[in-house]
Amino acid sequence: MTTGTRTGRRAGASGTRDAIAAAARRQFAALGYDRTSLRQVGIEAGVDPTLVGHFFGSKQQLFAAVTELPFDPATTIPALLDGPRDEIGIRLARFAVGLLETPAARERVVALVRAAASEDEAARVIRDLLTRAVMLPIAEGLGADQAPYRASLVMSQIVGITVARHIVGIEPLAGREPEALIADLAPVLQRYLTADLAPPSGAAVSG
Amino acid sequence: MTTGTRTGRRAGASGTRDAIAAAARRQFAALGYDRTSLRQVGIEAGVDPTLVGHFFGSKQQLFAAVTELPFDPATTIPALLDGPRDEIGIRLARFAVGLLETPAARERVVALVRAAASEDEAARVIRDLLTRAVMLPIAEGLGADQAPYRASLVMSQIVGITVARHIVGIEPLAGREPEALIADLAPVLQRYLTADLAPPSGAAVSG
Repeated sequence: MTTGTRTGRRAGASGTRDAIAAAARRQFAALGYDRTSLRQVGIEAGVDPTLVGHFFGSKQQLFAAVTELPFDPATTIPALLDGPRDEIGIRLARFAVGLLETPAARERVVALVRAAASEDEAARVIRDLLTRAVMLPIAEGLGADQAPYRASLVMSQIVGITVARHIVGIEPLAGREPEALIADLAPVLQRYLTADLAPPSGAAVSG
Repeated sequence: MTTGTRTGRRAGASGTRDAIAAAARRQFAALGYDRTSLRQVGIEAGVDPTLVGHFFGSKQQLFAAVTELPFDPATTIPALLDGPRDEIGIRLARFAVGLLETPAARERVVALVRAAASEDEAARVIRDLLTRAVMLPIAEGLGADQAPYRASLVMSQIVGITVARHIVGIEPLAGREPEALIADLAPVLQRYLTADLAPPSGAAVSG
């Protein structure tokens, strides 16, 4: 069903999967998300590059798997994009606030954001994984202009909610009922994703 | 011009000021912003309580002075409230983004937010000083309902911008020209401060 490994050094599926994950962690750390390729990960792992896709799917899924994101982008992104374009704000607010209400997921996200304040590795996960591999495909899926900038604006508000509500504990935001917070965040996330933005004047000049 | 000190133990104005500042730091740390009073600070400092106001002005100003905020709430708050109510978003965005563009101020705010991820003392400064003593009077000055909640929502976005733009470095937000970012943040801050919010359903039930 799968192609054989090129070297045959790996004992079985579990060994192959572990070797790919280890190579992926090294390459994502060394090169960043954009410059890492499934093909190079396979080569570094000493396996047939097609096996990387076989075991992990897309680059987004590989990255999510090796960094233990508390949700699966492969199902989350299509689910968030599935619905009216002018209701992406409420769907995304419901997902983000809901995720942070789940103790195990909150623990992981809070640990990540907390670590990002001082460790570049954690900051990179927020930049590359949450922004680049999750939020950007959502912004792009909506077909609006300036998708990368929109993705980063949305992340700024979601990170801000994580810090204000779950780390610093700013009241009454920290104790706000999830449904009310979702309703208040939805129009802001909607605006960041689909409303007209200021033109990126920096893009009009060279350099 | 001033009343004499109660104990006469302090050598001069500088010694008195230092004693008040030290007592204020202790009381703000032990009691939090709300339960600290100028009178009790004066008593703990061993000076006539009226001297606290003489040296530091209001409680907000005392708190700002002992925590070395990179702006003066006594001038900043009235300046932000001075103008059309439906333009508070742009005034506040201009102030916050502008402050973070000034290297010395940015350094202090970034250090504070970074520390707040792990130290309760820094988290308390964000809760008490930035939210309670600066943002809340602005929200109250606008006369909208749910002023404390509005203040905490605004803080979540400003903290989020600080983290995303200046700590984690999420592009293209991190490199966005200040004027464009101000234009994109303004409607969001305006919404948080003056638009209709979801009703606080928690407030309708007892407990």
